[in-house]
Amino acid sequence: MKPPVAQPTGSCPLPRQPQAQVLMAHGGGGRLMHDLLENVFEPAFRNPVLEARHDAAVFAPPAGRLAMTTDSYVVRPLFFPGGDIGSMAIHGTINDLAMSGARPLYLSCGFILEEGLALETLRRVVASMRQAAQSCQVQIITGDTKVVDRGRGDDIYINTTGIGVLEHPLEVAPHRVRPGDAVIVSGDLGRHGMAIMAVREGLEFKSPIESDSAPLWLPVRALLEAGIVVHCLRDLTRGGLASALNEIAMAAGVEITIDQPAIPIREEVHAACELLGFDPLHVANEGRFVAFVENAAAARTLEILQRHAVSAGAACIGRVTSSARPQVIRRSAIGVNRILDMPSGELLPRIC
Amino acid sequence: MKPPVAQPTGSCPLPRQPQAQVLMAHGGGGRLMHDLLENVFEPAFRNPVLEARHDAAVFAPPAGRLAMTTDSYVVRPLFFPGGDIGSMAIHGTINDLAMSGARPLYLSCGFILEEGLALETLRRVVASMRQAAQSCQVQIITGDTKVVDRGRGDDIYINTTGIGVLEHPLEVAPHRVRPGDAVIVSGDLGRHGMAIMAVREGLEFKSPIESDSAPLWLPVRALLEAGIVVHCLRDLTRGGLASALNEIAMAAGVEITIDQPAIPIREEVHAACELLGFDPLHVANEGRFVAFVENAAAARTLEILQRHAVSAGAACIGRVTSSARPQVIRRSAIGVNRILDMPSGELLPRIC
Repeated sequence: MKPPVAQPTGSCPLPRQPQAQVLMAHGGGGRLMHDLLENVFEPAFRNPVLEARHDAAVFAPPAGRLAMTTDSYVVRPLFFPGGDIGSMAIHGTINDLAMSGARPLYLSCGFILEEGLALETLRRVVASMRQAAQSCQVQIITGDTKVVDRGRGDDIYINTTGIGVLEHPLEVAPHRVRPGDAVIVSGDLGRHGMAIMAVREGLEFKSPIESDSAPLWLPVRALLEAGIVVHCLRDLTRGGLASALNEIAMAAGVEITIDQPAIPIREEVHAACELLGFDPLHVANEGRFVAFVENAAAARTLEILQRHAVSAGAACIGRVTSSARPQVIRRSAIGVNRILDMPSGELLPRIC
Repeated sequence: MKPPVAQPTGSCPLPRQPQAQVLMAHGGGGRLMHDLLENVFEPAFRNPVLEARHDAAVFAPPAGRLAMTTDSYVVRPLFFPGGDIGSMAIHGTINDLAMSGARPLYLSCGFILEEGLALETLRRVVASMRQAAQSCQVQIITGDTKVVDRGRGDDIYINTTGIGVLEHPLEVAPHRVRPGDAVIVSGDLGRHGMAIMAVREGLEFKSPIESDSAPLWLPVRALLEAGIVVHCLRDLTRGGLASALNEIAMAAGVEITIDQPAIPIREEVHAACELLGFDPLHVANEGRFVAFVENAAAARTLEILQRHAVSAGAACIGRVTSSARPQVIRRSAIGVNRILDMPSGELLPRIC
């Protein structure tokens, strides 16, 4: 016969009703963290791998090379015209996978929550992540939540890490860029950064600037399926087109020349940039990429991209002009060439 | 003939010498971020995949099922007896992979740095990560750095996400736990949490308490290679042994009974716990796990674990006693049974 089981003493169970705010205890590995998992994360991200609730998620290896990428999201404000930190944390990481030619499969998700965060805010962000993940057909299979003291965070920081699979033999990478390649952007530039800055600065325009935050896998898949020999793809996030082109020029050892008038930029973005003193080519996008393809494939590439809503505004903006010196040249409307430098990076903090 | 190239105007290049502190611009996607990558991260984590410097890291799929896990590290202080946030961010994620029976292969690494952080501190943390990764034979293949304003972070937060491979057909998971299974811990408990708390509270002991932070893959591999049918493994981090056992009891629908006197706890940890009012079974460890194996394999499991330095103090502490009710029973030295509850989780903030 087993000895009788006494009731636990010395522990005063916390009330089980939903808390209105995130407490330090939500990150402590105990009952409240368990509640958070059961009531907020698991209902939103439900899938068989996540539900196994083990320290690591186990999945069958897909056929093909794998791609892995990580990004932390610290954007302020959390909600902005055209998006929020939640959908952005899904799109951004999916896009990094897509830029290597990988079909996004699985995401991990790490939250750093600030004590005092309204649980309702967390729910909104999680719902947005869920919707974005569903529409992109990726699964969040593992996660982690930490809570930091008030004044040591800023409501919510999110890390997502993505795993994708390359279902083709192409190597899509900066060093594959060659003189003669066409330089194609997938749409108008500067909207994400200017949407955020407009909110922060309280600017109002006739038509409010909306972030371009969007997943980019579908147009990339269409290019790959059409057999376009894509040399390099890069999404135009922090540092904008200027950073991306400079990084690629350095990695490939090439000179890239772009035609300023060919770069699609909306009127209101131009206006906001002028008002705030930004170069639109330095401004972050969250749903735009640059593609380098052989010039012979440029027209077909444009045609394919323009079929997809997210890249309907695709345009050819320049060429890889030589391999003499790694640099980026911007040619003005009147034919004057200037070096387009990498931005110093201090102008647009916490844009993503 | 190409038109002449004018020098860039309107941009005042920042000095290229190393900055003593992290600036907002280090997270802006421009030149300073590039410098940080070149001068701090890449020299430390050098490997061919990382050096490709693309948005995502591409690697060949290993043969076997894959495991993925993520953890953010927000421990305070950054450096403590027996470890630091850097080595912990490697060990912790490797350990989560090991707990699913996976050999750790690749890590991603996401930093959230607070403006004003001394670059020297970052270098120390990165050097510690490098050393830990090397000694565990894992590669950091992709990364990300964000900078948040002063007072919106706490020096350094790190997310690491790990990919591992299961090179055996076993399923190592909570639902595999069966009545009759032996419950084995890999060593003495409570050191990590008490090492941190002792520093925070300024406690001094004759022999200072050192964190047990350590990688656990080697003893796990030894169990798998010896053919031990491991039902479940769980590292005893946040919430300690009490959380781990309660989670497993719930997932497997079993009652677990542990013998308090059989649980290895050092004298100084007992003393610190008593002083600060903690139950050592609620306290976090960073280099300890619990293993559930068939009782017939318990002696052999202990023998194998005790051969490895990190699990030399392994001990059998109890049994899975029934499947009547998911609960954890703690039997005292005089044979009184009490329910061991999941901690509420509010006692030990930012321990990992």
